[in-house]
Amino acid sequence: MNRQWQLARRPEAEPTVDDFRLVSLDIPEPREAGEVLVRNRLLSLDPYMRWRMNDAKSYARPVGIGEVMVGATVGEIVRSNDPSFVPGDLVLAGGGWQDYAVVRSEALRKIDAAAASETAYLGVLGGPGFTAYAGLMKIGEPRPGETVVVGAATGPVGSLVVQLAKAAGCRAVAIAGGAEKCRLAVEKFGADAAVDHRDPDLAAKLAIACPRGIDVYFENIGGRVLDAVIPLLNPFARVPVCGLISQYNGLEQRSDATPLAQLMQDTLVKRLLVRGFIVTDYNAYRDEFLALVAPKVKSGAIVSLEDVVEGLANAPSAFLGLLKGLNKGKLIIRID
Amino acid sequence: MNRQWQLARRPEAEPTVDDFRLVSLDIPEPREAGEVLVRNRLLSLDPYMRWRMNDAKSYARPVGIGEVMVGATVGEIVRSNDPSFVPGDLVLAGGGWQDYAVVRSEALRKIDAAAASETAYLGVLGGPGFTAYAGLMKIGEPRPGETVVVGAATGPVGSLVVQLAKAAGCRAVAIAGGAEKCRLAVEKFGADAAVDHRDPDLAAKLAIACPRGIDVYFENIGGRVLDAVIPLLNPFARVPVCGLISQYNGLEQRSDATPLAQLMQDTLVKRLLVRGFIVTDYNAYRDEFLALVAPKVKSGAIVSLEDVVEGLANAPSAFLGLLKGLNKGKLIIRID
Repeated sequence: MNRQWQLARRPEAEPTVDDFRLVSLDIPEPREAGEVLVRNRLLSLDPYMRWRMNDAKSYARPVGIGEVMVGATVGEIVRSNDPSFVPGDLVLAGGGWQDYAVVRSEALRKIDAAAASETAYLGVLGGPGFTAYAGLMKIGEPRPGETVVVGAATGPVGSLVVQLAKAAGCRAVAIAGGAEKCRLAVEKFGADAAVDHRDPDLAAKLAIACPRGIDVYFENIGGRVLDAVIPLLNPFARVPVCGLISQYNGLEQRSDATPLAQLMQDTLVKRLLVRGFIVTDYNAYRDEFLALVAPKVKSGAIVSLEDVVEGLANAPSAFLGLLKGLNKGKLIIRID
Repeated sequence: MNRQWQLARRPEAEPTVDDFRLVSLDIPEPREAGEVLVRNRLLSLDPYMRWRMNDAKSYARPVGIGEVMVGATVGEIVRSNDPSFVPGDLVLAGGGWQDYAVVRSEALRKIDAAAASETAYLGVLGGPGFTAYAGLMKIGEPRPGETVVVGAATGPVGSLVVQLAKAAGCRAVAIAGGAEKCRLAVEKFGADAAVDHRDPDLAAKLAIACPRGIDVYFENIGGRVLDAVIPLLNPFARVPVCGLISQYNGLEQRSDATPLAQLMQDTLVKRLLVRGFIVTDYNAYRDEFLALVAPKVKSGAIVSLEDVVEGLANAPSAFLGLLKGLNKGKLIIRID
């Protein structure tokens, strides 16, 4: 038989064990070409699963009521309709919370148990490890001497962020829950400092731990940790938004959902890019701009509005009108 | 004599003409090598000046009390201690709100009055035009068929954003204040639709104007326009943050300053990059990741923590513990 944990109902906020239901089903059969039967040996549990329990539009569809809970697994091929997988092969699969799964072979990756432990393929070499790598290296782009801050720093994502940040020559500051995890972050993973997110003085402690500000904040928490981080961000800081575990128990329902929390959730779900800029940062493109636009202005292909006000004496009143939106085009004082 | 508008005092919120003071000073003299005396002919007035009137840390230092108000000017060289500039040359300068300025010659750009009008060098070919170009093309990266939304759309920045967006093959949606500006945005600048930001139904009207959502939001307003934009942002949308005119009259003092308003101000001032990501977006880097990290895991150079829980029956309770932060490492169920 196939034991399977299904979603029994949607949690209102914090989930309970009654939100899950264990059922026994027949072992499924691979039927079509490319389908294989996997016997799950290891199941990864990850925070994102909480989000999938909500009936909310996101980057992945929610788990339906009565459907098997999703999850990454390490398993063994039992039966195969794909000649490149044979019984006994070890694979990384999305097998879910159950003993057996029928999956499409293109969704599988073979794993080499000689190269690393089976469990590593669900952690440091699996989705969490790769999440740390992609977010830190491809978005955060840490440079030597910079300060990298990461939350849940003893977790599978955060602990690799800390180590990759150190390998990149950065100061790594860990945020974790409780003294024991803070100690681990420093002693086992090599963080330069660790701050307890439960500390009532979180903001002050984080400021002390980041004497040169924060250049990369690897966001996986949200809430008051983000609030403490924002004032410390340096110019040109990068904030890869990976997760928002403090918000997973139901942003929609909470009356204290702030527009900021909503923006951060959207930033994650929709992979938004938000970037401030001051035009002088782009001076290298100024000649390109003039070469492209000036001829079009001359030809009339690009038009512009100008509000020219006569007399330096009128500068303040014209400026106040500008702030009120009274003018339509570029406001210019012709100095008399 | 040199008539000069100085900052007389810092405005509390909305500035008044009494915040400025007109004084008459001697015409200054260029003394050191590289200094030139410019007679200002045109002065540009721009919203950023309101921000400089505040005593707030930002990307540029505030105007001091009793100091000349800053601003871009088109002027004529009167006297020169730099052989590459001769009296009569027309230049783009940061001459400020006054008749004459002594400036360093490396801060000047000669302008060609035959190529475009003198006023254009303060508008569509000056800082505002280049701001539109840099923000839209270098950050927004508009692609054909996408929807670009910009506020203050008849202003010198917004009107060029609209035209560049159209030239890039995008749907351009203008936000402007009042029916007259909305008409201008469509008829003069070619926007596909225009929405009045004073409309009480702003959010609904914007949604109608953007039937395929928003791919690029060129942010120069903040406040309720941003609130209306956020729900319409498509996955992978880009939001270059150029300005926040709705916040310039004093975010610090306002009791309704939200964390979101603060984040957007910081995003601008500090040129932050905020980008959400889902790890599968980066699948092209997965082999690179494994090649780099797997040997270090094997050698022990990279360490990880694993919390392995025995038995599929324990999946829900282990998962609930994960959400409460009870585990330290990667949580894995060994399926019995």
